[in-house]
Amino acid sequence: MLGFSPPSLEKLVREFSLLPGIGKKTARRLAFHLISGDREKMGDFANAILEAKEKLVHCKICYGITETEICPLCASRNRDRTILCVVEKAADILPFESSGAFKGLYFVLGGVLSPLDGIRPENLHIPQLIERVHSDEVQELILALGSSPEAESTALYIDRKLADTSARRTKLARGIPVGSDLEFIDEITMLRAFEERVRV
Amino acid sequence: MLGFSPPSLEKLVREFSLLPGIGKKTARRLAFHLISGDREKMGDFANAILEAKEKLVHCKICYGITETEICPLCASRNRDRTILCVVEKAADILPFESSGAFKGLYFVLGGVLSPLDGIRPENLHIPQLIERVHSDEVQELILALGSSPEAESTALYIDRKLADTSARRTKLARGIPVGSDLEFIDEITMLRAFEERVRV
Repeated sequence: MLGFSPPSLEKLVREFSLLPGIGKKTARRLAFHLISGDREKMGDFANAILEAKEKLVHCKICYGITETEICPLCASRNRDRTILCVVEKAADILPFESSGAFKGLYFVLGGVLSPLDGIRPENLHIPQLIERVHSDEVQELILALGSSPEAESTALYIDRKLADTSARRTKLARGIPVGSDLEFIDEITMLRAFEERVRV
Repeated sequence: MLGFSPPSLEKLVREFSLLPGIGKKTARRLAFHLISGDREKMGDFANAILEAKEKLVHCKICYGITETEICPLCASRNRDRTILCVVEKAADILPFESSGAFKGLYFVLGGVLSPLDGIRPENLHIPQLIERVHSDEVQELILALGSSPEAESTALYIDRKLADTSARRTKLARGIPVGSDLEFIDEITMLRAFEERVRV
């Protein structure tokens, strides 16, 4: 807090600096940008936050972000209900939908298992997932979790919990990203791409 | 706009992406961060924006950002009123105050001259600056403007306009930033540092 700087400006700077990846200097630059522009636009920004706060809820079926009780994806009659893509967080749905390759449904776990941080299956939506696969028409479960040790062991845990079902468990292929220069590929990605190489 | 994504979320993403240096992907990450956290904190953020919108005004004397008619710096009895530091924008005051080296007053121009963009002296606070130097006790004017051609010609314009006054016009020293490795200094900074070299 700087003595000469107005409290309401410092408060705005602090709010921006709480965002991920936004340091003190960037927060100040963003705050100055907002207050230096059209004041009406500040109202628009505040209202967008308040409206999102008010309207956004978790879908009762997939736990994604939605404005309705059941999200449009879960409610759609055009999606393949036999295939379920399990992701860590709602934001992970976007790249699937953008690619247009996936026509099934999603399920948001809400994180990955991490016993050291006290995150157990019941802290995530894992019981609900197991229940759904047992009672629903799911034939394939794509475990699209990250590549951290926690994410990998979460996938293993779910796989084991569903060993008694006929639902196939799969994961995404790992390898060289399309368009990447081999020179810049990290060692672990290269190792995976090598180990999981396929016929031309 | 993505079909499956809720409108209020997309609106929030758009607001973030209007900020400088925030691309589409970062805007989405920030929006997801906000809605994934404590909902009360979203209210705090919105209120910080609304409070800043409501309270922040331009100081009637220096045109800096303040909550009062006259900012604390201009109102202070502990500042040297004979020396005036002229900056482009209110955000430029911070590094001076942080350094603690400057005890004079500030004057915010509100930009630099740019005839091609239609920015003339009367679109900035230049007439008010000239008036102030003529009528006030200012003995030195530090023209702390940027190093763009527009900023340099703005400094020259002000210098010429004040040729008939006894107020000394100065500018900040240019040279090698303290702590910088010479290897990484750009050519123009090096040229300036060389030209304006001083006795040890």
